[in-house]
Amino acid sequence: MGMTLEEIAKAVGGEAAGDKDLVITGINSLSDAGPSEISFFSDRRYQDNLRTTRAGALLISQKTDGFKGPQIIVPHVELAYARAAALLAPPASRHAGISPEAVVHEKSLIGKDVSIYPLAYVAEGAEIGDGTTLFPGVFVGEGAKIGKKCLIYPNVAILDRCIIGNNVIIHSGAVVGGDGFGFVRDGAASIKIPQIGIVQIDDDVEIGVNNCIDRAALGRTWIQRGTKTDNLVHIAHNVVVGEDTIIVAQTGISGSCHIGREVIIGGQVGISDHVKVEDRAMIGPQSGIAKAVGRGEVVSGSPAIPHRLWLKVSALLPRLPDFSQRMRQLEGRIEALEKCAPAAGAPGSGHEAGKE
Amino acid sequence: MGMTLEEIAKAVGGEAAGDKDLVITGINSLSDAGPSEISFFSDRRYQDNLRTTRAGALLISQKTDGFKGPQIIVPHVELAYARAAALLAPPASRHAGISPEAVVHEKSLIGKDVSIYPLAYVAEGAEIGDGTTLFPGVFVGEGAKIGKKCLIYPNVAILDRCIIGNNVIIHSGAVVGGDGFGFVRDGAASIKIPQIGIVQIDDDVEIGVNNCIDRAALGRTWIQRGTKTDNLVHIAHNVVVGEDTIIVAQTGISGSCHIGREVIIGGQVGISDHVKVEDRAMIGPQSGIAKAVGRGEVVSGSPAIPHRLWLKVSALLPRLPDFSQRMRQLEGRIEALEKCAPAAGAPGSGHEAGKE
Amino acid sequence: MGMTLEEIAKAVGGEAAGDKDLVITGINSLSDAGPSEISFFSDRRYQDNLRTTRAGALLISQKTDGFKGPQIIVPHVELAYARAAALLAPPASRHAGISPEAVVHEKSLIGKDVSIYPLAYVAEGAEIGDGTTLFPGVFVGEGAKIGKKCLIYPNVAILDRCIIGNNVIIHSGAVVGGDGFGFVRDGAASIKIPQIGIVQIDDDVEIGVNNCIDRAALGRTWIQRGTKTDNLVHIAHNVVVGEDTIIVAQTGISGSCHIGREVIIGGQVGISDHVKVEDRAMIGPQSGIAKAVGRGEVVSGSPAIPHRLWLKVSALLPRLPDFSQRMRQLEGRIEALEKCAPAAGAPGSGHEAGKE
Repeated sequence: MGMTLEEIAKAVGGEAAGDKDLVITGINSLSDAGPSEISFFSDRRYQDNLRTTRAGALLISQKTDGFKGPQIIVPHVELAYARAAALLAPPASRHAGISPEAVVHEKSLIGKDVSIYPLAYVAEGAEIGDGTTLFPGVFVGEGAKIGKKCLIYPNVAILDRCIIGNNVIIHSGAVVGGDGFGFVRDGAASIKIPQIGIVQIDDDVEIGVNNCIDRAALGRTWIQRGTKTDNLVHIAHNVVVGEDTIIVAQTGISGSCHIGREVIIGGQVGISDHVKVEDRAMIGPQSGIAKAVGRGEVVSGSPAIPHRLWLKVSALLPRLPDFSQRMRQLEGRIEALEKCAPAAGAPGSGHEAGKE
Repeated sequence: MGMTLEEIAKAVGGEAAGDKDLVITGINSLSDAGPSEISFFSDRRYQDNLRTTRAGALLISQKTDGFKGPQIIVPHVELAYARAAALLAPPASRHAGISPEAVVHEKSLIGKDVSIYPLAYVAEGAEIGDGTTLFPGVFVGEGAKIGKKCLIYPNVAILDRCIIGNNVIIHSGAVVGGDGFGFVRDGAASIKIPQIGIVQIDDDVEIGVNNCIDRAALGRTWIQRGTKTDNLVHIAHNVVVGEDTIIVAQTGISGSCHIGREVIIGGQVGISDHVKVEDRAMIGPQSGIAKAVGRGEVVSGSPAIPHRLWLKVSALLPRLPDFSQRMRQLEGRIEALEKCAPAAGAPGSGHEAGKE
Repeated sequence: MGMTLEEIAKAVGGEAAGDKDLVITGINSLSDAGPSEISFFSDRRYQDNLRTTRAGALLISQKTDGFKGPQIIVPHVELAYARAAALLAPPASRHAGISPEAVVHEKSLIGKDVSIYPLAYVAEGAEIGDGTTLFPGVFVGEGAKIGKKCLIYPNVAILDRCIIGNNVIIHSGAVVGGDGFGFVRDGAASIKIPQIGIVQIDDDVEIGVNNCIDRAALGRTWIQRGTKTDNLVHIAHNVVVGEDTIIVAQTGISGSCHIGREVIIGGQVGISDHVKVEDRAMIGPQSGIAKAVGRGEVVSGSPAIPHRLWLKVSALLPRLPDFSQRMRQLEGRIEALEKCAPAAGAPGSGHEAGKE
C-alpha cells in the first residue's frame, strides 16, 4: 500500500519536482525516514539533516539542492505535513459493527456504520450518530447524544443527557458531565447543590486524555466548535469556551468563566470563577487569572500581568538580593551625608515627609 | 410530575406568598426559567433579571415587588435552592438490581437494594452496602468495603481492602487506593516500598472526577466525614483530611500531611509532605505550602505568606522595573551629593558601613 | 503464615540480635505495630516511640537499649524496611489464568502464567508477556506489546502499537499512547497533525495513577528503565525520560523535552517544549522550566533560577512592601539633601545620569 509522489502532491496542494511515480508508504522525521518514506523541512535548526537524511522524498517550501531526492513544493510545510500524515498514517483500528459483547440498551438509537467495541455501555435513550466509534470501557449515559464520525476512546464517560456534536474526538479517561463542584454551607456542613444541567460539546472539538468537563448546575457547560484541549484539563460547571480555542495541559477553568474564541491558554494555568477572557487573548503557562483578560491581550504570571511587563519582572526577581543590599548601602550613605549636612535632618525636611 | 408551591415551601423551610397551588416542575436560573419552573434570587448583580424573568415562582429572602409571580420567602436562599433542586432534579439513572452482565464474585457480600450496572466488577470478599449504586466500569477490589447509599460513578477503581463509609459519592475515573509513591534509593535505582496500608473514606464525603487517593504505606490514608474534593485532586499516602474540608480542583497534597477540619484549599495548591494545616485555615489558589498553617490562618502565594501580605506583595511585583530604575537614580543622585560633600566618603563613614 | 526473625534478617541482609525464632507476621510503624509485627527506626524524630512501641521486633542500624525486644541490625534501615515489607505484605490479588469474561482477540499472543481479569480487553496482534496481570477495565490496543511480570491496574489504556518492557507497573486510569497535542493553524482552524508514533516504556518503570503518556507525532515517546512517575503526571509527545528518574505528582512535561537520568522533578512542575534537563538535575516543586537545566543543577521557581538564589529571593519577596516604603523614604531624604547642596542638582550631575 502507498501513494505516488504525484498523488501526495495533489492531495496536499503542492507541486512535485523529481520522480513523480516514486511510491511513498509512510512519513517520518528527517533523521528517521527511510527510502520509501517522505519527510518535511521547515525548521532551519534541522538544516544539517537535509544532507544526511535517508528519506525518499521531501515536503519543502522552496526547492533545495541540499536534498538530492524528489521534492514537493508547498506553500505551508506544516500544513502539508499534517495532510500527508493523515493519508499515510497506519489505519486506525475499528471494531466491525456493534459487538455482542458491548452492552447497548434496546431503547438507544444507533446510527449507520457505528463501531461499538466489546465492553462499551450505551444507556437507555442514548443516541450514537453515523460512523461513530466507541472503544471498550466507554460509558454513554441515559439520554446522552453523540453526533456523527466521533472517536470516543477507551474508558471515556459521557454522562446522562450530555450532547456531543460531529467529528468530535474524546481521548481515553476523559469524563464529560461529572457533577460541578457546588455546595452551600449550612453551619460547618457542605450541602450539595444538585448539578442538573448538561455539557454540550460542538463539532470538531478534541478533548484530551483524562479531562474533566463538568455538567452545569443549571443550563449548560459549553465547548464550542473547533476547540482543542490537551491532557488533564479541568473545565468547571457553566463555563463557556468559544470556537477554535486551544487549552494546554493541566489547566483549570473555574465555574461560570466565559472564554472567547481563538484564545490560547498555556499549560497549568488557573482561572478563577466568573472571569471573562476575550477573543484571541493569550495566557502564558502557569498563570493565575483572577480578573478579565481583554480582546487580544497577552498576559502571564500569577496574578497575571501584561506579558511584556512579566518578562521584565521575571528578569528582575533574581536581583532582589542585590536590591536589598543596595538599599542598605544607600541608607548608610545617606545617613553619612545627613550627618555632614545638619540642616537636612531638620523638622519638615524631605526625610520626615518620606516617613509614612 | 411536579410539586405545588406550598409543598416546595414546606420542604425548604420557607413561606409561600401568592398562588400556593401553582405546580412547579423544575428549577432554573432567572434568565432561563420558564413559567412552570421556580428560580431564585440572592445575588444583587442579577437584579435586572427579576423584572424580565419568565420564571413561574421565586425563592427569595424578602418579598419583592420586582417580581410579579408567587414567591417563597426563605432565610437562606442558596440553601433553599439546593434543597429545591434536590426535589426537582431529573431522577438519577439507576440500574434495577444486580446486572447479570456485571461480574460479582460469589464470595462478596451485597446488601439490599443495591444497583450494579453491567460491566462493573466486585472482587472476592468485597462488601457493598444497602442502596449503593455501582456504575459500569467500576472496580471494587478484594476485601474492599463500601457503605450504604453510595454513588460510585463509571470507571471508578476502589482497590483492595479500602473502606468507604455511607452516603459517599465518588465521581468517574477516581482511583481510591492506588499505591503511594514510596521508593528508597539503592545506588541509582529506586527500590519500591510496598504500600500495604489502605484508604479510609468516611460518611458524606464526595470525591471528584479523576481524583487519586493513594493507599498508605502502612496504616491508612484517611478522608474524614463531609469533606468534598473537586476534580483531579491528588492525595498522597498517609494523608489525613479532617471533617467538612473543601479541596478545589487540581490540588496536590503530599505524603503524611495532616489537614484539619473545615479547611478550604483553593485550586492548584501544592502542599509539601508532612505539613500540618490546622482547622479552618484557608489557602489561596496556586499556593505552595511548605510549612505549617495555623488554625484559621489565611495564606497565599508560593511559598505561602499571610494572604493580606500576599495581596500587597502581588500589587508591588509589577513595579519591580520601576523600583530598579529608581534605585539606579538614587545611586546617581547620592554619588553626586557625595562628590559635593567630600567628608561623607571618608573611611569609616556610613557609606562604607553600608557595604556588606 | 509468617517468617522467623532469622529468616527476615537473612532476607534483608542484616544480623538478628535476640530471639531469632520469633515468628513475625507483618510490618508496621512504631506507633501501630503489635507484638507479632516488626517495625523500623531511622528517623530520630520518632525516638520516643522506641520506648512505647508494642512491636515484636525492630529493624535498626545500631543496637539500641531503648527497645527491649529482638532487633535486626542493618546497614540501611529504609532499604531493609522496603525489603521486609515486600516479604510480609498481604499477597497481591491475582485472577487465576485468563477469564472467559475477558475479551481477548484470538490473534493476540498471550504468554505463560498470564492473569487476565474479567472485563479486560486485548486487541488483535497484541502481545502479553509471561506472568503479567491485566486487571478489569484494562485496554490493550492493536499490536501493543507488554513484557513479562507487569502489573496493569484497573482501567488502564495502552493504545495501539505501544511497547511496554518487563516488570513495569502501570497504575489505575493511566493512559499510554493517547494522541500528542499537535495542531497546525489554517486560518483560525486547528488542523490535527496525526500522531502516528508510539510510546515505549522500558523495564522496571512505574507509572502513577491517571498519568497521560502521549504517543509521538513520529517516532516514539520514551520512558527509560527504572523511572517512576507519581499520580496525574502528563508527558507529551516525543519526550524522552532517562533512566532512574523520579517525577512527582501533577508535573507536566511538554513535547520533545529530553530529561536525563537520575533527575528528580518535584510536584506540579511545568517544563516547556524542547527543553533539555541533564542527568542528576533537581527541580523544586511548582517550578516553571523554560530553558535547559545543566547536569546536576538544582533549580526552583517560575521561571526557575538556581535553588539557593531562589531561597533568598523567596525570603525577600514578603519584604517588598517594606522596600517600597524605604525607597520612598530614601527619595525624600535625598531630595532634602539636594535642597541643602544646590550644586548636586546641576546639569550633568549624577542625578541626571541616573535617569534612563
